[in-house]
Amino acid sequence: MYRYRLMAPGPTPVPENVLTKMAMPILHHRTEAFEKVVAEVREGLKWLYQTANEVLIFAASGTGAMEGSVINLMRKSDTALVVDSGKFGERWWKICQAFGLKYDIVKVPWGQAVDAKIIEQKLKEKEYRLVLMQASETSTGVEHPIEAVAKLVSDLPGTALVVDAITALGVIDIPTDAWKIDVVVTGSQKALMLPPGLAFASLSPKALKFCEESDIPKFYFDFKRELKSIKENTTAWTPAVSLLIGLQEVLAMLKREGRENVFRRHAALARATREGCKAMGLKLFAPEAPSTAVTAVYSPAGMDAGKIVKTLKNKFSMTIAGGQDEAKGKIFRIGHLGYYDPMDILNVLAAVETALIENGHKIEPGVGVGAALKVFMAGSSNA
Amino acid sequence: MYRYRLMAPGPTPVPENVLTKMAMPILHHRTEAFEKVVAEVREGLKWLYQTANEVLIFAASGTGAMEGSVINLMRKSDTALVVDSGKFGERWWKICQAFGLKYDIVKVPWGQAVDAKIIEQKLKEKEYRLVLMQASETSTGVEHPIEAVAKLVSDLPGTALVVDAITALGVIDIPTDAWKIDVVVTGSQKALMLPPGLAFASLSPKALKFCEESDIPKFYFDFKRELKSIKENTTAWTPAVSLLIGLQEVLAMLKREGRENVFRRHAALARATREGCKAMGLKLFAPEAPSTAVTAVYSPAGMDAGKIVKTLKNKFSMTIAGGQDEAKGKIFRIGHLGYYDPMDILNVLAAVETALIENGHKIEPGVGVGAALKVFMAGSSNA
Repeated sequence: MYRYRLMAPGPTPVPENVLTKMAMPILHHRTEAFEKVVAEVREGLKWLYQTANEVLIFAASGTGAMEGSVINLMRKSDTALVVDSGKFGERWWKICQAFGLKYDIVKVPWGQAVDAKIIEQKLKEKEYRLVLMQASETSTGVEHPIEAVAKLVSDLPGTALVVDAITALGVIDIPTDAWKIDVVVTGSQKALMLPPGLAFASLSPKALKFCEESDIPKFYFDFKRELKSIKENTTAWTPAVSLLIGLQEVLAMLKREGRENVFRRHAALARATREGCKAMGLKLFAPEAPSTAVTAVYSPAGMDAGKIVKTLKNKFSMTIAGGQDEAKGKIFRIGHLGYYDPMDILNVLAAVETALIENGHKIEPGVGVGAALKVFMAGSSNA
Repeated sequence: MYRYRLMAPGPTPVPENVLTKMAMPILHHRTEAFEKVVAEVREGLKWLYQTANEVLIFAASGTGAMEGSVINLMRKSDTALVVDSGKFGERWWKICQAFGLKYDIVKVPWGQAVDAKIIEQKLKEKEYRLVLMQASETSTGVEHPIEAVAKLVSDLPGTALVVDAITALGVIDIPTDAWKIDVVVTGSQKALMLPPGLAFASLSPKALKFCEESDIPKFYFDFKRELKSIKENTTAWTPAVSLLIGLQEVLAMLKREGRENVFRRHAALARATREGCKAMGLKLFAPEAPSTAVTAVYSPAGMDAGKIVKTLKNKFSMTIAGGQDEAKGKIFRIGHLGYYDPMDILNVLAAVETALIENGHKIEPGVGVGAALKVFMAGSSNA
């Protein structure tokens, strides 16, 4: 009898107090009581985003806010620069393509971070309306140098930076205003510890100016309309009421923990996962710029990574993720963003050890768990 | 001490068993377990829609599926015919307008249903790609003659009928296939008794053909992509997992009650609400084609309808809706779609009676409740 354990890079587990809060009888969305919820959530999001600007809220999955960023900030004649280092990087140019917009791609090999110098060069060659990239590429477990790219873009009046931080916001420090990022997109089902169904986008003054200049049709994802609404503590369309009630609770939890502590916790979980995997003799898929949200690991030579995923599912009732597209069968991915503590990491490493040994990989039981435990012990003695 | 009672035309109360089901630990959406949920929901939606075709599922509010219907079925050169009889009718042409699409409006006075003959005439004068209308116009409490319009449209190979049934599906009998409606849109927070956050759209073969011919850009609300996904028991983008778990439970409840019984229950609730209001000496806003989902009632001469709404809120912790736009201050609206039984109607009528009397309207306490009770007694003796 194993309890179900969700260790994929999203959706991530929802805290019990949030689940029960969302199970309270539903509120009407056009009431003072609900406006108070939105007002509190609005302030909480600004705090988490580290921005004085507004953060828009959509009833949608993260892809909706990605699409919204493109169609609200671009003009028909503009060109976007897309950093494509995996499945979610791809999504940026697929959105541009769907709307008939021009784009150039900075193609980055899977498992690597983009070199900011290449973006610098590109920005010198052509005027791009938007730079579209991920903070953390979930499909490869890579973290991109957002601060460096933001420095390049923030000086250019004709270019804005849109960061998909769906698996980064609330995981690593992304100070939206200090770094002058124009749009930061995120979703509810990652570090925000909620079920999927909410998407968010912050809006810098430059981004708002771009919205005003945009000539691309939009309705459901109309940023200007939502900006007007959020300033009145509401949303243009019927909001996902129960998820917003949950968000109110989650933001209160994050505030209690403290933003810096949240980042430190995630850093420790990620480091422990990496050390645990390395101690099992496994190679990291993204050793140079590993994501703090998800660790991508090669399976041992000759062992289909799908076998590891399957063993965890069948033996331990545990969901981790396999590789996608070109990484399929080669890697598995452990999520550690959101409602996780060190014990969860020890659990998943123990399960991976078991799966490896059962599939013929020769290691001493406990070697990965022990290496992770060392990281946590060092972390707490530093605290 | 009054419990909170939500009697607005959506969001409507969520059944306790559904709330607790949605409060279970979250499932990953790319798993066999969740595919089974989607497979069951998919079959259940077909049953509720009375269609052999697929019903697409979106993480969005209903407006998202309305936008999707327009941008997936129209071509840039096409013209739509919009029935505008209230706030939601308006939304159809606002969507067309946002996307630069041509449209003609059949303007219907607030409180009235459209005359199918006018649509017949319009369809003779011009080729319209789409007829866009509501089954039930929530802002005015009107039901439109969908069957009659569907008969007109179904013979025209170049025209499709898109029905916003957000406050009608699961309330009144709308047999999608039998009436040959091309797209029926609904949302989660009405008769489906869930929190807001899911939108749905059925797709007839003609609608699918129109999707294939469409030249309007789309990405998040791409019907063809979602059709492919739903056939594999999944969704293109991360689904609103907890709401789908809730939907599985709701559809099972509706099946147990029986579709015809669901319609009969709603019809009785609506009739009792109307009789109760009339017995209080109030005039219905839409006496000729009253909606089965929501009853719109004029406040007595000289009394601001907002006062009634406010008294119900402050004295009885009960939310009903006021009038919108041109009906503001003149009417109040009682929702009776979804998780309601006769006792709920007696409650809201008792509260309205009290509010009326407190504001100087001279009636005998119990007169409205009694009239409603008579309807229910007659109904059960017929059963």
